[in-house]
Amino acid sequence: MDREAQLIERIAKAVPSIRGAGRGGGIRLGIGDDAAILTPGLRTEWVLSCDAFLEGVHFLTKNYPPDSVGYKSLVRAASDLAAMGAMPRIFLLTLALPARLTGKWLGEFVRGMARAARLLGMRLAGGDTTKSATVSISITVLGEVARGLAVTRSGARPGDILYVSGRLGRAQLGLELIKGGGSGTPARVLRSHSRLLQPHLYPKIRVELGAWLARHKIASAMMDLSDGLSTDLARLCQASRVGARLWADRIPCVKLPAVRTGPLRKLRLDPLQMALHGGEDYELLFTVRRKQVKRLRSAPDFAEIAAIGEIERGKGITLVGADGRGTRLDPGGWDPFRRKS
Amino acid sequence: MDREAQLIERIAKAVPSIRGAGRGGGIRLGIGDDAAILTPGLRTEWVLSCDAFLEGVHFLTKNYPPDSVGYKSLVRAASDLAAMGAMPRIFLLTLALPARLTGKWLGEFVRGMARAARLLGMRLAGGDTTKSATVSISITVLGEVARGLAVTRSGARPGDILYVSGRLGRAQLGLELIKGGGSGTPARVLRSHSRLLQPHLYPKIRVELGAWLARHKIASAMMDLSDGLSTDLARLCQASRVGARLWADRIPCVKLPAVRTGPLRKLRLDPLQMALHGGEDYELLFTVRRKQVKRLRSAPDFAEIAAIGEIERGKGITLVGADGRGTRLDPGGWDPFRRKS
Repeated sequence: MDREAQLIERIAKAVPSIRGAGRGGGIRLGIGDDAAILTPGLRTEWVLSCDAFLEGVHFLTKNYPPDSVGYKSLVRAASDLAAMGAMPRIFLLTLALPARLTGKWLGEFVRGMARAARLLGMRLAGGDTTKSATVSISITVLGEVARGLAVTRSGARPGDILYVSGRLGRAQLGLELIKGGGSGTPARVLRSHSRLLQPHLYPKIRVELGAWLARHKIASAMMDLSDGLSTDLARLCQASRVGARLWADRIPCVKLPAVRTGPLRKLRLDPLQMALHGGEDYELLFTVRRKQVKRLRSAPDFAEIAAIGEIERGKGITLVGADGRGTRLDPGGWDPFRRKS
Repeated sequence: MDREAQLIERIAKAVPSIRGAGRGGGIRLGIGDDAAILTPGLRTEWVLSCDAFLEGVHFLTKNYPPDSVGYKSLVRAASDLAAMGAMPRIFLLTLALPARLTGKWLGEFVRGMARAARLLGMRLAGGDTTKSATVSISITVLGEVARGLAVTRSGARPGDILYVSGRLGRAQLGLELIKGGGSGTPARVLRSHSRLLQPHLYPKIRVELGAWLARHKIASAMMDLSDGLSTDLARLCQASRVGARLWADRIPCVKLPAVRTGPLRKLRLDPLQMALHGGEDYELLFTVRRKQVKRLRSAPDFAEIAAIGEIERGKGITLVGADGRGTRLDPGGWDPFRRKS
């Protein structure tokens, strides 16, 4: 067996996967041929997305635990499926990495990916591996949703209430800790601030909530928060051709620890700014028609859902402060091509 | 609109694509949401594959015309669909590139990709773009095949005749020309040896032939030649648990030009070795039961198909010379993780 085939075999053994002929669930052939074969059912639609996770852009191999890279690369891709209300099913992995990382690093990477796959109920159905100077991961995910029930970004209407799950800015706090820890001390920061780093290194996504909102036709529009509320809400508004008012004091913001040690002593952190512009929370942002709002009480994670604003006619987002004054909110989240100002 | 969204918009405008709500053909929603939505038909199966194409591994931005990078990245991914007998339909593009290449380079890249998409009848349905230090492309392709008719690698049986389309080693010749041209003179080589470089820079794939072999149930096993005949045939044999005999003098080899100019004067080239081990020809390798052989005459491209060997019991590949003597043929094609010897 050639070395590339050995590597694929090793990954397929460690991660939940479909090798050779599949056993139902819509997948007739998995890893080991030119392509996977999918046999669709009559009552479902498939939802398809892909996501890049790159060393030097999204993570650094020297600062990040390899199992976090494996875990997060799959979870962030699957988050796009949850945001449509679909159940994640299978994924394809394109992995390019330096030969020196094919030992221990790859073993831990795969362990993290396997954990994410088990949590999400996903199986690997194919991929491509090659060597390269830096680690480059691209993941294609496929999910299933009942026909006609997928929730897009474009269904929000004036008067709809805007909701978000979870607290925002938690992933940004983790990123600041890793950056603030300096390049020499990542291991120490990983130990001392382990709990605060979880949302950045091992994000959780809202698959059950997304599927529930789709199944019960409660969300009129939905997306996941990957690039920051200010940027992602602007995208939802643009797709729906509406504007929005955000109530600043209703936005659930990251909680900063009362006692600040290590890099936290030096960092100037503003929870509202982190919640508005911090990326990678992978929480759900969705809109609900006013007459449907009551039904939300039966939602999974209901206690973690907050109404943070409303959809209105026009364009743009207005941030309304506690004093009732509104200011225009421009997208300030993650944009990989923005020029530094 | 943020700069990443502008880039996606620019690509989606230049390449045949499905934006927003699709109009039949199985795609209900294309680019611009969290994910694409596919509505499967009853009579078809879908075939899914992904492929990485990386600067520094598969191409160099300074030596390769950008439109070739765009063209080839899609064609080589779609080749896996042709190898299953499927018709290519849609693709997702993950593109990471340095900000300095988002101008003219990207324009030409997209032009090449658009040409490939039109030739193949494929449409872009989603993707992910980000910046990075080097160009990293990952493409997911989706094809359609009548239910149960996809041809895998594992159906070859002892006694089957082994066929290949086209001449092998032609892409290798192009690669040698680019490498032999030296890093300082790619433009001159591109001009002076344009015709010989075509198979390497702008490969053609055998979609019609693959689909015909599947539809008429003539191929018992099939794959595309991406990493070289010796490596790929070993994979087909392993998947089918058989061995093979290759007739050396029946293998259609690359033709070297009679008059050798430029880098060709210095290069020592052996057409049989290039046909056996050269990668990236993207021709089809397939097996046919003896009683089906006659039916091949109606195949598209029949004049370009050659019987090059037969499947036998056991393991391994024997290369039979013109003198009737057999020698063992080990995989000697492209393996990104092989240690240099």
